[in-house]
Amino acid sequence: MSLLDPLFRWDALDGLFTDRARVQGMLDFEAALARAEARLGVIPKSAVAPIASKCRAGLVDMPALASAAARAGNLAIPMVKQLTELVAMDDSEAARYVHWGATSQDAIDTGFVLQLRPALEKFEAELDRFADSLARLAKKHRATPVAARTWMQQALPTTFGFIVAGWLDALLRNQERLHEVGKRAIVLQFGGAAGTLAALEERGIEVAKALGKELNLPVPEVSWHSHRDRAAEVATALGLCTGTLGKIARDISLHTQTEIAEIFEPAGEGRGGSSTLPHKRNPVTCAVVLAAGIRVPGLVSTMLSAMVQEEERGLGGWHAEWETMPDLIGIAGGALHHLADTIPGLEVDKAKMRDNLEITHGLIYSEAVQMALAGAMGRGAAHEHVQAAGKLAVEEHRHLREVIKSDAEIAKHLSAKEIGRLFNPKEYLGVADELIDRVLQAHASRKPKSVDKEAADPHGVRRKKRR
Amino acid sequence: MSLLDPLFRWDALDGLFTDRARVQGMLDFEAALARAEARLGVIPKSAVAPIASKCRAGLVDMPALASAAARAGNLAIPMVKQLTELVAMDDSEAARYVHWGATSQDAIDTGFVLQLRPALEKFEAELDRFADSLARLAKKHRATPVAARTWMQQALPTTFGFIVAGWLDALLRNQERLHEVGKRAIVLQFGGAAGTLAALEERGIEVAKALGKELNLPVPEVSWHSHRDRAAEVATALGLCTGTLGKIARDISLHTQTEIAEIFEPAGEGRGGSSTLPHKRNPVTCAVVLAAGIRVPGLVSTMLSAMVQEEERGLGGWHAEWETMPDLIGIAGGALHHLADTIPGLEVDKAKMRDNLEITHGLIYSEAVQMALAGAMGRGAAHEHVQAAGKLAVEEHRHLREVIKSDAEIAKHLSAKEIGRLFNPKEYLGVADELIDRVLQAHASRKPKSVDKEAADPHGVRRKKRR
Amino acid sequence: MSLLDPLFRWDALDGLFTDRARVQGMLDFEAALARAEARLGVIPKSAVAPIASKCRAGLVDMPALASAAARAGNLAIPMVKQLTELVAMDDSEAARYVHWGATSQDAIDTGFVLQLRPALEKFEAELDRFADSLARLAKKHRATPVAARTWMQQALPTTFGFIVAGWLDALLRNQERLHEVGKRAIVLQFGGAAGTLAALEERGIEVAKALGKELNLPVPEVSWHSHRDRAAEVATALGLCTGTLGKIARDISLHTQTEIAEIFEPAGEGRGGSSTLPHKRNPVTCAVVLAAGIRVPGLVSTMLSAMVQEEERGLGGWHAEWETMPDLIGIAGGALHHLADTIPGLEVDKAKMRDNLEITHGLIYSEAVQMALAGAMGRGAAHEHVQAAGKLAVEEHRHLREVIKSDAEIAKHLSAKEIGRLFNPKEYLGVADELIDRVLQAHASRKPKSVDKEAADPHGVRRKKRR
Amino acid sequence: MSLLDPLFRWDALDGLFTDRARVQGMLDFEAALARAEARLGVIPKSAVAPIASKCRAGLVDMPALASAAARAGNLAIPMVKQLTELVAMDDSEAARYVHWGATSQDAIDTGFVLQLRPALEKFEAELDRFADSLARLAKKHRATPVAARTWMQQALPTTFGFIVAGWLDALLRNQERLHEVGKRAIVLQFGGAAGTLAALEERGIEVAKALGKELNLPVPEVSWHSHRDRAAEVATALGLCTGTLGKIARDISLHTQTEIAEIFEPAGEGRGGSSTLPHKRNPVTCAVVLAAGIRVPGLVSTMLSAMVQEEERGLGGWHAEWETMPDLIGIAGGALHHLADTIPGLEVDKAKMRDNLEITHGLIYSEAVQMALAGAMGRGAAHEHVQAAGKLAVEEHRHLREVIKSDAEIAKHLSAKEIGRLFNPKEYLGVADELIDRVLQAHASRKPKSVDKEAADPHGVRRKKRR
Repeated sequence: MSLLDPLFRWDALDGLFTDRARVQGMLDFEAALARAEARLGVIPKSAVAPIASKCRAGLVDMPALASAAARAGNLAIPMVKQLTELVAMDDSEAARYVHWGATSQDAIDTGFVLQLRPALEKFEAELDRFADSLARLAKKHRATPVAARTWMQQALPTTFGFIVAGWLDALLRNQERLHEVGKRAIVLQFGGAAGTLAALEERGIEVAKALGKELNLPVPEVSWHSHRDRAAEVATALGLCTGTLGKIARDISLHTQTEIAEIFEPAGEGRGGSSTLPHKRNPVTCAVVLAAGIRVPGLVSTMLSAMVQEEERGLGGWHAEWETMPDLIGIAGGALHHLADTIPGLEVDKAKMRDNLEITHGLIYSEAVQMALAGAMGRGAAHEHVQAAGKLAVEEHRHLREVIKSDAEIAKHLSAKEIGRLFNPKEYLGVADELIDRVLQAHASRKPKSVDKEAADPHGVRRKKRR
Repeated sequence: MSLLDPLFRWDALDGLFTDRARVQGMLDFEAALARAEARLGVIPKSAVAPIASKCRAGLVDMPALASAAARAGNLAIPMVKQLTELVAMDDSEAARYVHWGATSQDAIDTGFVLQLRPALEKFEAELDRFADSLARLAKKHRATPVAARTWMQQALPTTFGFIVAGWLDALLRNQERLHEVGKRAIVLQFGGAAGTLAALEERGIEVAKALGKELNLPVPEVSWHSHRDRAAEVATALGLCTGTLGKIARDISLHTQTEIAEIFEPAGEGRGGSSTLPHKRNPVTCAVVLAAGIRVPGLVSTMLSAMVQEEERGLGGWHAEWETMPDLIGIAGGALHHLADTIPGLEVDKAKMRDNLEITHGLIYSEAVQMALAGAMGRGAAHEHVQAAGKLAVEEHRHLREVIKSDAEIAKHLSAKEIGRLFNPKEYLGVADELIDRVLQAHASRKPKSVDKEAADPHGVRRKKRR
Repeated sequence: MSLLDPLFRWDALDGLFTDRARVQGMLDFEAALARAEARLGVIPKSAVAPIASKCRAGLVDMPALASAAARAGNLAIPMVKQLTELVAMDDSEAARYVHWGATSQDAIDTGFVLQLRPALEKFEAELDRFADSLARLAKKHRATPVAARTWMQQALPTTFGFIVAGWLDALLRNQERLHEVGKRAIVLQFGGAAGTLAALEERGIEVAKALGKELNLPVPEVSWHSHRDRAAEVATALGLCTGTLGKIARDISLHTQTEIAEIFEPAGEGRGGSSTLPHKRNPVTCAVVLAAGIRVPGLVSTMLSAMVQEEERGLGGWHAEWETMPDLIGIAGGALHHLADTIPGLEVDKAKMRDNLEITHGLIYSEAVQMALAGAMGRGAAHEHVQAAGKLAVEEHRHLREVIKSDAEIAKHLSAKEIGRLFNPKEYLGVADELIDRVLQAHASRKPKSVDKEAADPHGVRRKKRR
Repeated sequence: MSLLDPLFRWDALDGLFTDRARVQGMLDFEAALARAEARLGVIPKSAVAPIASKCRAGLVDMPALASAAARAGNLAIPMVKQLTELVAMDDSEAARYVHWGATSQDAIDTGFVLQLRPALEKFEAELDRFADSLARLAKKHRATPVAARTWMQQALPTTFGFIVAGWLDALLRNQERLHEVGKRAIVLQFGGAAGTLAALEERGIEVAKALGKELNLPVPEVSWHSHRDRAAEVATALGLCTGTLGKIARDISLHTQTEIAEIFEPAGEGRGGSSTLPHKRNPVTCAVVLAAGIRVPGLVSTMLSAMVQEEERGLGGWHAEWETMPDLIGIAGGALHHLADTIPGLEVDKAKMRDNLEITHGLIYSEAVQMALAGAMGRGAAHEHVQAAGKLAVEEHRHLREVIKSDAEIAKHLSAKEIGRLFNPKEYLGVADELIDRVLQAHASRKPKSVDKEAADPHGVRRKKRR
């Protein structure tokens, strides 16, 4: 764990992308390979126990592995060598069958997929938790008026619940996406040196299927050694998700500004304090999430650039993935977790929201007035008329309502009572309420999908894990 | 059309992303809005014809629009103004109902979606054509031996058909992805100034549905003014697709090198000529596709960075999309089209492929020899043994076969005949053939999906277009 | 000109990166080459006039050029062909000497450098103009108190002039950078097919020098066909400059928010209007500059990725530059110009700035109070003490000054008068004034540098242009 | 140290960017601040020793710091708190003066600059070492003929020394750049909470100067809390440098291909071995450097995107830098070091280079023939003529020399002897030799600059370090 991890990362992912986990992923591949091959009689059954018993990261000499990897160009070559030596110490016969028929990339890529699978499961669960919080928040504030702001300017009234429903709606698409992506990315890598499984002669596909079963991983049509869209797509899906998180954090940070002061991250001992400014409560989660929103796009572009790999194994492109993916997952995961954690405690100052609606002295109701007049005067004329009234209100420091009321032309079309109603935020919310319901229903109806999800998972990979 | 367009772009997309098409997209939105609102009695039926008849890009004063947009900050505001004036010249009453209840962003975003829809359809069709070519090529060369190269070094034999099957397999995933993305991206944008459709009072959802019907666009749960994952996801899907294309182009360019000379882009008058080097035939398509592989990741990162937008309308982030998406689509489309166009005429020199397999004087069969020995000697010992033999072969400039034959230890395990067989590429292809079939079957079975696709399209949006 | 150009681009650059200018750049190279070679007797003197007279973009058949370029893979090959034919029509003898000893890339790269040179000059001049505006603004508002905001929260008082001095300071570094970059980037490209100038036998360097003289371009040690840091560095310098512009725009946009309302972009007919919200004045320039801040980093990463080119001419990497650089220059130039244009008319509401300093009911002076107490109580104790007072002030809705005044412990250290002084923004500005002067002096002292600049330009390239 | 560090990073940088080094950088700032302030009488002289003695990273409770930082949003706030407590244990009076007048960002940014300074010094030294190797290699192979390849096709002869001179030339520009950048980036950060140094009243600049002296850091005109071009420029300079390294690695990797086999990375126990393919020697350094060439551009774009920071302290943008810069420096440094380390041992197969020049059966001399004919026939006619001869040579599998010799038209212009000479690579190298000398001279003349460098370093910052 590094000093900045608690700030930027998510501890639930911590164990998944350590050096040890990386090595264990590869060793899980090797153990499963031995089991699968022994079951099919490709290697002797007696080789399984001696091999599998050594497939534990704790037995690996990590410094030696690291320095050998610098010469070999990847971790699998020296790891297989260490493993073979470990097995040979007990059983030199079994040692012959370590890594049988596989290539380094099979171990590295499948190992990574085995790290990625629980990570994506955690993402999905955290997205669920986040979505649930947002649904609650949207319901709670469905009738809380607040200024809608476009171009960072107050525009017209909306409700805070409607804003949150928009956040939730975007989150639902990210859930859908991540689920689709997982189906393409969480698959076995197994092709041997050139993808043809030549070292296994005619038994390659059989072994692949048995290996997939061992690891609960679907077997793709063909190996994907130098076709990296599977990993890169995970990057893009997390990139989109981080973009959505960043947008929500941007909103919160803007609403938190001293002069607006409508929403606050939850307080807490030492949270967001300043070393020199004792009164401040800084939006720390927003900073973390916005930082992710800045960092992740560059990492996604790296994964896309890295796709242009050479022939049957990339030179540089593949290597570029090894640190990039864990970084990207860590940063995106940190953003997701910290924001999901912050939402339930979000402080909402309804009174301040209401006060802020008065800052423009009625100009925020311009559209409402304009639409009320447009039927009678036409959209264009109403626009110009209200714009003139607005100008007058600003110049004379009067409330727009008063200017409107004293306008003879408008008096022809609107009664004083009607004018009064126009300056009430609750009267100009359109179908915000129904739209919130549409999003909440979409959220609610997603739930059963997790059942489908399992149905669509013939290998039972995920179900098993959850027991 | 600019000078470099024929080189980098795809003419079939040309008409879709011009200034005129951009304006027409917005005008199609305005016309449909009038029709939808009139049908529901929100605006008078008599307003439809006067409005719709003016919704033609040819009537717009483009220079005036451009310069007004520079002041307004977007195209829709001055375009609506021009449209209103045009309508007013004929029918001042109808002019009142132009753009009724909508906001600029509704017109701009829906207009863009209307440009994007045929573009994605063209992408899907071109991917189909490309996949078909690859399937034919994979079948044709399923038994053509060629060196598999890892780390840019000859590794072991494979077949060219197997390499192409790998290309095809990746392409199929891109097809799947693009199809999924289209379902999320090709939707109506309609929310009014703050997304609440306040200007339409209680009739907002009704109008949205009617408008969606007019434009054959699904109506999403809620508008997505500042949640930009829909557009950004199109960018990521095209980014992944371009990555796959780039990988294929990298492969072709490497195989085309003077010293390898196994594959060539089709010849043609003036194709790939050099101004000073009369004999050269440059892989122009590869250059174009590789350039796209370098350019698109940066544009994708722009779209992801742009997602972090402010409140109910982004300041800068939204604007960043307007030129980026057409650029990205143009570049990705150019790469797709030029590569799809090149594949059917690809020249494959089977004899040269075979000759190149002999360059290593048998070292390329090291793994084959090693695996043949591994059963008897163990993987590790066989590895070391064959490595030593390889070293000797290199030092003494002998063929590995001869070194192997003269090795007493190996003679214990392998007969001369067996050794001979090991140095035949066709004898060390593993399950390449079955794997090719798996990919071809996946390709073939994708076809009926286009029927499903229509079933899954309740609005019949795509079907209608195809008639 | 495209519809969005007036919004996003700078008209002063317009003519520099058109198709015509691109072709003219290459033709200027060809004409200069003929002159240089004739002067040295490498080609006949009689060939110069017939060649040079045809080196006009207006004579080129652009559609034919475009379509031939799609086959040839670059513009220079078919352009040289057209030029040769044009010359041959008048003088078949002279036509023999067109493009003598050069390669396509020499024409394309030098042509681009010739487009880039005036562009960078315009950038430098616009940066000068911008810096001058900022210097005036900093002076004018050196004593205008405003809240400094950290983490988007009011922190302590500063002056608006000090904020502007910070903008100016960053701009000065960008000027310096752009000047240094120009020295490396604005150089001749001339190497022949492989950089060795083989086609000119032993006279290559002589010709290069004469050609450099003709074009007023320094001759680098060696050609840079596949070493692209010269162009990429221009991209990075513009990227840094755009980052600074984006930061300034971010500041303005935040200060412009309805609730803060301290600074406004200049008003103007149709500027920043909203189609539905008649009262709004949107910060259009900020949107444009922020969009550039989002777009340019992706384009810079493209230029850096493109550097990894193959051998003596890049396949794809070089091609990736051709549209990227003009895009990047156009976007960065638009941002620079629009912001430089906006600053002189910036409206500053000093009264509102002062009012906003009161929003925290004195909490903004916490650090001032703390420092006043720290000498006596220690920094830690003072911090905790003031934090407690701040908490009380918030809870009881009292002004911090009142809480402080009624605190017995504090009364020991500070008199009522001293306390009063602490709550005056002008009393807590530190050395803001001197720091502003430091920046203004740095700005003023940069001026003579433009004289140095010419001294450092032995070829007189820039001086000549300016006459 | 992580498992992949020896592969991707440079051990000489290892200690510079650890958690401990990060904390020590901040503590060095705090100690120097106490010393500077005491010297000026701003704080008591007696406070220095108690404070300075605690400014050791080894005394900090790292886990507590990490978890407090997650709440505070940065490391400096809790670090100052720990430091204060440590000091207070011994001397509660001195504890009052910890961090006097500074803000968190002063400690974090200056701390980072203190980490960056030795890193840039190491980069400069390694670039020197690399440049020296390249100069030696260029000299050694100045007359070694090899095929120049454009578009990845053999084009005409060049020398390997000329290719290496091109690498060196690009490296020299990177040295120049890095040196310029260092002057802007290695400066003090000291501004207090808002940059005005308000907490130090009228003594801010005085303290800043004394602090700069303590740390051997130039004092900039004004603090740069939210103007991040200084750090971002370091990123761009390293980005350009990595691009150059990537280009060199691309060249080596292409020349190393089995079929070309002209250059090899040095062999070594376990270097570049393959787990399944015993004969292979993979270009591991190229993979590492190419991976850096793919990764760094994304990180540079992050740094540029992060520049658009808010007001007096960025929310997210600043945070985005903290892990990005060390990553970027680590990756770029690893690429630099591994490539610099590989060059001296590079194996060059001159015989194979010569053999490869014969692969085209003379077509590689087409330009030589064309130029020889161009004087007589005109460039265009010569081009067409030689192209036709080339075509014939290919079709009839004849050497171009033979086709040329048997051509009656050519016989008019060239004797058999002249033709013979045209097919010798040494006869068509143009001014390669002089160009190599120009680069070598530029390299040699850079040396004295390091003296200048020190002269230009009034603070003696670098000199001191080197003693």
